[in-house]
Parts: sequence; C-alpha cells; structure tokens
Amino acid sequence: VTPFDPNVPVPLFILTIGDELLSGERVDLNGPWLARTLEPLGFVVREMLTVGDEEGPLMDALSRALLLGGLVVTSGGLGPTSDDRTRDVVARLLGRPLQVDPDIVAQLEQRYRARGLPGTPEPALKMAGVPLGAETLPNPRGVAPGLAIAEGNRRCVLLPGVPVEFKAIVESAMIPRLDAWFPHRAPGPVSALVHTTGIAESVLSGQLEPALAEGGGLAGASWAYRPSLRGVELRFSAVGGEAPAVLQELLRRAEPVLAPYRIEAGSGDLAEWVLRLCGDRNWRIALAESCTGGMVAARLTAVPGSSRAFLGGVVAYDNRVKQDLLEVPATLLNQHGAVSGPVVEAMAQGVARRFGAEVALSVSGVAGPGGGTEAKPVGEVWFALSSPLGGVSWRQRFPGERDEVRERATQHALHRMAQALAGSSPISG
Amino acid sequence: VTPFDPNVPVPLFILTIGDELLSGERVDLNGPWLARTLEPLGFVVREMLTVGDEEGPLMDALSRALLLGGLVVTSGGLGPTSDDRTRDVVARLLGRPLQVDPDIVAQLEQRYRARGLPGTPEPALKMAGVPLGAETLPNPRGVAPGLAIAEGNRRCVLLPGVPVEFKAIVESAMIPRLDAWFPHRAPGPVSALVHTTGIAESVLSGQLEPALAEGGGLAGASWAYRPSLRGVELRFSAVGGEAPAVLQELLRRAEPVLAPYRIEAGSGDLAEWVLRLCGDRNWRIALAESCTGGMVAARLTAVPGSSRAFLGGVVAYDNRVKQDLLEVPATLLNQHGAVSGPVVEAMAQGVARRFGAEVALSVSGVAGPGGGTEAKPVGEVWFALSSPLGGVSWRQRFPGERDEVRERATQHALHRMAQALAGSSPISG
Repeated sequence: VTPFDPNVPVPLFILTIGDELLSGERVDLNGPWLARTLEPLGFVVREMLTVGDEEGPLMDALSRALLLGGLVVTSGGLGPTSDDRTRDVVARLLGRPLQVDPDIVAQLEQRYRARGLPGTPEPALKMAGVPLGAETLPNPRGVAPGLAIAEGNRRCVLLPGVPVEFKAIVESAMIPRLDAWFPHRAPGPVSALVHTTGIAESVLSGQLEPALAEGGGLAGASWAYRPSLRGVELRFSAVGGEAPAVLQELLRRAEPVLAPYRIEAGSGDLAEWVLRLCGDRNWRIALAESCTGGMVAARLTAVPGSSRAFLGGVVAYDNRVKQDLLEVPATLLNQHGAVSGPVVEAMAQGVARRFGAEVALSVSGVAGPGGGTEAKPVGEVWFALSSPLGGVSWRQRFPGERDEVRERATQHALHRMAQALAGSSPISG
Repeated sequence: VTPFDPNVPVPLFILTIGDELLSGERVDLNGPWLARTLEPLGFVVREMLTVGDEEGPLMDALSRALLLGGLVVTSGGLGPTSDDRTRDVVARLLGRPLQVDPDIVAQLEQRYRARGLPGTPEPALKMAGVPLGAETLPNPRGVAPGLAIAEGNRRCVLLPGVPVEFKAIVESAMIPRLDAWFPHRAPGPVSALVHTTGIAESVLSGQLEPALAEGGGLAGASWAYRPSLRGVELRFSAVGGEAPAVLQELLRRAEPVLAPYRIEAGSGDLAEWVLRLCGDRNWRIALAESCTGGMVAARLTAVPGSSRAFLGGVVAYDNRVKQDLLEVPATLLNQHGAVSGPVVEAMAQGVARRFGAEVALSVSGVAGPGGGTEAKPVGEVWFALSSPLGGVSWRQRFPGERDEVRERATQHALHRMAQALAGSSPISG
C-alpha cells in the first residue's frame, strides 16, 4: 500500500548543499533542471532550499525537508573531502549507521586505477559508506553513487552535486526508482506558454483577468506573468482529471486579448518569426542601425539558417557613415538631425538600394546617457520600415537607461516588422 | 542601541518568490548576486529559499525567514498582477495594514504617461500600497519600489524580482539603508576580482595553484574560479586582521600567471578597453562582421560615449554584400571561400577604406549548426585586424553550438584587438 494520495502530485522538496552556492560564487542549476524534469512526471516542487556545508544547518534543513516533502532530493555533499557531510548527517538523523558497501569499494578501485593511480586514495573510501537499508543508485559519470532511502512514508534521494553526474543518475536510476515508489501518482499539470511583446504587464493583466474570469471559474486552472525587457511571457496551467479541457478553455478565453501581442514563434523569438515571414515570400532583409549598433542584426543572425532571408546591414554610428554608405543627404541631417523621421526614411531607402533588399529597417535614437535634449530626450528612437507592402516611419520613446533603451528598441523594431509583414498592422506611407 | 552583535557578520536570509522559479522555468540569479554583493559588506548568507506564489507557503517561508535572519531580503511578488502577493502577505504577517503612498501614485502616473498610456492602469495601483511604518526604496529602473521594514530586532527588505530593478534598488537605496540599520557590523572579507579571457579554467588553475602556494600558506586567504563564455573571473579574498596585506600577497603571487590574460578595464569589459586604447590615439574603428552578425558592434556601442572612437560597421552576412560593399574580389571568394584568410583580409581592408577608419576588424566563420565541412568544421572562424601598427589575420576554432561559437568569437575578437592595440601582442603581417 502506498502512503501517498494517488489523486494529487507528490510534493517534492529540493535541497542543494554547498558553501559555493550560498556565497553566490556558483549558481545552482540542478534544482531548476530537476523541477522541469519531474513536474511532468507528477511531482510538484514545494520548496527549493540552499544551505552551506556546515553540519548544524544541514541537519536542520534535512529534518525540515523530510517534514514537508513526500519526496526529498538533495544535491551535493557526497564527495570525498572533509566538507562533504550529507551522508553522515542523513545517517545520524535517521539513525541508520553507515556500512561499507563492497561493490562500491570495488568500483572505486577500478575507477582510480583506470585514472593511473595505484589504488583508491584513502579519503575516497568515504564514498563507499551507505546508510543501513539504503539502496545505491549507480553513477555512470563519476565515482559517488546516489542513495535512495525509504523512511516511514517519506522517500529521500541523495545525489552528488556535479551537474553531469546529478543528471545521469536521475535519468538512469532515480526515475525508475520513483516509478516503483509512487506507482499510482496523479498526472502532472498540463501547461502552455504564450510569449507576448509590446504591452506592459499591468495593462495586459488589466485586460486579461476579466477575460479569463468570463464564464465563471475553472477548477484546477492557473496562470502566471513573467515580465522581461523583451516582453511578458504567460504560462497557463491546469491540473486534475479535466486538465486538457480546462487548458483549452483558458486559451480560448485569453485569445482575443493576446492576439495583437502574441509572438508567433514556438521559441518566443521575434527574430525567428520575422525571418519566417520573409523567407516564405523570398524577401530579403537589410538593416541600417544607429543607436542599436548591430543588436537587431545580432538577433536575426542568432537564428540558425538566417542567411536564407538576411543579407546584412550597416551599423551607421557616425553621421559620415550615414552619408557615405547610406547616401543620406547632408541637408536632411543638418535640417532634422540624425534622430528624425526624414533621416530614418533615407537610411532605410539607402540600405535597401545598397543591398538590393526587399525589406529594409532603420533605427536611429538617443540611447543615452548623454546626447539628450528637451526636444529629443534620452529614450527617443525613430524607426523606418520599407517593404513591397509599403513604407512607414514612426517614433517611440523608451524608458530606462542605455542598455534598456537599446534592448527595448531592438525588440520593438522586430515586433513592428513582424506585425507589418504578417499583415496585422497595415504598412502605410 | 543596535540589537546586533557588532563583532560578527549579520546573518542574511534570502527568499526568492515565484512559480516560475519553483517550476524551474527560470533560474534565480538575484540570490547569488545579492550574496556576492553583501558578503564583502559584512553579511553572511544562512539560507537561500525559493517558494512559489501561493499564499500559505509564502506566509510560512516569511515567518521562518524572520526567525532565522537578522536581515531578510525577498525577491519577487511585488508587481501588479494577481499572483503578486508578497506585499499583502507581509502586511498580514506583521499586522501592518497597507496604506496608499501618494508619492508612488504620482510616480506611477508619470511613468505610464511617459510610455504613452492615458494614465495608470487600475491593477498597477496595487504597487502604491505600503505596509504601515515601512520605508520605500525608489526603483530607478521600474515601477514597483522596494520596501524596508524594521520589525523588533529583525530587518526586512522586499524587492521586485526583475533583475535590473532588483540590482538597481540594492545599489542605490538598499545598501545605504543597511549602513544606517547596521552601523557597527563586523567587516566582511576584503576581495579583488580579476577578469581574464583566452584561457580555460583547468589550464589556469593548473598554473595558478602552484604559484599561489609558493612561499607557504596564507592565513585567511581564499580564491574561487567562475568560468563563463567570456572568460574566467577570479575572486581572491582574505579575512581577519591582516586581510589587506594577505590579499596583496595573493595578488602578487598570481600576477605572473594572470598578466597575459587579464582584462584591463575596471568593469571587466573588453569593449571599454578597446575603445579607450583607440580613443587615446584618436584612432577610429570600423568592423566587417559575418558570422558574429553585429555582435562585436553591439558590444562596442553598449559602452557610453563609444561614438568617440567607433564609426560603424558592415554586417556582411551574404557574400554579395562582401563583394558589393566591402569590395572583396569574387575570385577570392570562389578560390578560398568566405571563411578564409584572404577573404577576411580583404574585408578588413574594404571596410577601412569605406569608412576611412584607422582600425578595422573583420570576422568570418562557420557558426553552425549547418555549413560545416571536414576542412572547415562548425566553430572555425577567421579574423583580420588592420591598424597603423600593421595588419594580421588568423584562424581560431571554438567549441560549442551556434550561440557559444558566436559569443566566444566576439569576445576573442575584442581580446585580440585590445592586446594588439595595447602592444602586448605585436601586430605583424
């Protein structure tokens, strides 16, 4: 008989151990990876906790983990050195004395000899200690095996912290062990990720919340907003027997609000969408960038196969380059300044001619921190786009400092390109 | 009277909040960054805990944090949406009702108008709620301010989770607040950061460890390696009464090993160093990029004031662009291929002529995933550099996938430019 309710996911507590994590010198990636790996298998993370190598705090953290988690997985502290204490602390906490496992002793011996050593170094023998009644999980990528322990109605797995070893043991030995321990667990949540751009989080939620509420509450439904400089990512989830239908209904309700802002690329990358829209029509892109200084080009060329639709661009940082390479008339620069509608239009036309491109985009703005005026403050950016569908120029003001203005301007440029080329925002002169 | 022992560092509890962290969709970097930032200031992290957006677990975690930490810092859950609950939970836990702060209301209004909205969206008003007696910490990079609360002999700071906002508030407002709260705390370790590039972690440690050991052990000394695609960052630390002298001695021992790989810019940014080297001589830079697709230009233009030394560049992704704009002879392209010494040399000469630049750099390589051959596999990149000191071209092979090859090639290009211009690696034809 399993002591777990087979109708809910198993609560999972992840404990990562190491002074180098606590001091911020290393960032733990095992915890997030494990969460992503086990969630679809019917485990739901309740807490991720990081503690150092000291014995007292480690003991406290482990007791607490065993109190909260149906399943506890630890990462780190299983190595051969004096600051590796997980094995001892677990043995003491659970009253299970460590016993030397002759199979591990033999594997250690073999491994060290293969590395050219005369035998197992004395401190490494520590790794052959197994708490009474624990099962060992073989380590295909290193020396310290994982340890699986059933304690009352709790289950605990101790794993080494080196990421390749951690992952290898999870995949080859831990997941089969979990299937045996929790044969009847509930299915994990189903979820869908929607990438949006061009709308502030608070504006989006102001529109989305009423839309999602319309028609009454949905059992087991949840959603979360994740803002970044590139836009807001939305994650819709549902749990329970009706999960797939509930998720469909959530997405149906959200659709009218999200449509204008949704990024139509699986990866959530606007650059990929822009390249696909051009590639489909055999149109080729050229760029003329001033304040974004190559960032739009870098985004497009980050996509594998971008050469199909992307010809190249000019980073026209100096005004002389705008004149010489893009043939922007000096009179326009003198009369309107480099950050102006007439200049970005001339830049787009110039680069389209030079490169023989169907689609041309130009950007010129005041990224700061210097160079702002009352009429053209830091954050003011002009764009022009020309394509067989027509030509347009516009101005946008971005908040933040230099990095943020440049990043937002890059994302905005790609967004407007995608919208214009997808036909959801008509291009007009 | 401060309730804290001035002879020991203040225990710090870091609580990061968000379903996206618990599910592993996002990796928390705020916690590690904060630990690295506050440790030298006399705070020592006891635990880093991640919980989701749910109210119950958040309430539990916060009570526990206040029990354990002299200082508690939270990240996340201060935004405008329904899953942002930190503010409410703290208000309830501490019995401090939320009060609307008219200053924040005014700032919100200003910020949303600046973004072209008619006023503050209703859900955003939530961000103006301040627990009774809390102090607000202005957010220079976003809308939600931080909140600082003194509760008995505990101190608590709530911060938004968006990394740029989190960091900006910590640096501009939280650290001064901590100095006022904990005026007599014990000094933290002294440390020095050395940015290196162009050497692998294992090779560096193989040379550095014996050098640091020479002359005997140093009490209170420690060092750590942090590898990334841009290079290895080294942190040397010392604690105790002799800390400054110990640190000096560590750096003296390390110097001969580090010199060839050290980045001579306080920020650790090679782009800044390159711009300074050119700016000092009134030399101006032009770039011709193929596989890096604008990334070198983006790095240079990220530095404020880069227009003093940077003219611009051509992203010559398509071979036609290499011919038309950079005047690379078709015969060279046909005979040697785009990824070759003769072609990068012609690209550098072409862009130098076009832009009237003293310093020209070109890059052409196979970034992958497609396009590799046995003779020119994925990761093979050619570079050429010309300046009044001379001209040189060379080939380098980088490991990894597309993103990694591009990032490494960009960093390598800047590194070799800096070395050549600084005279530490002679340019020769």
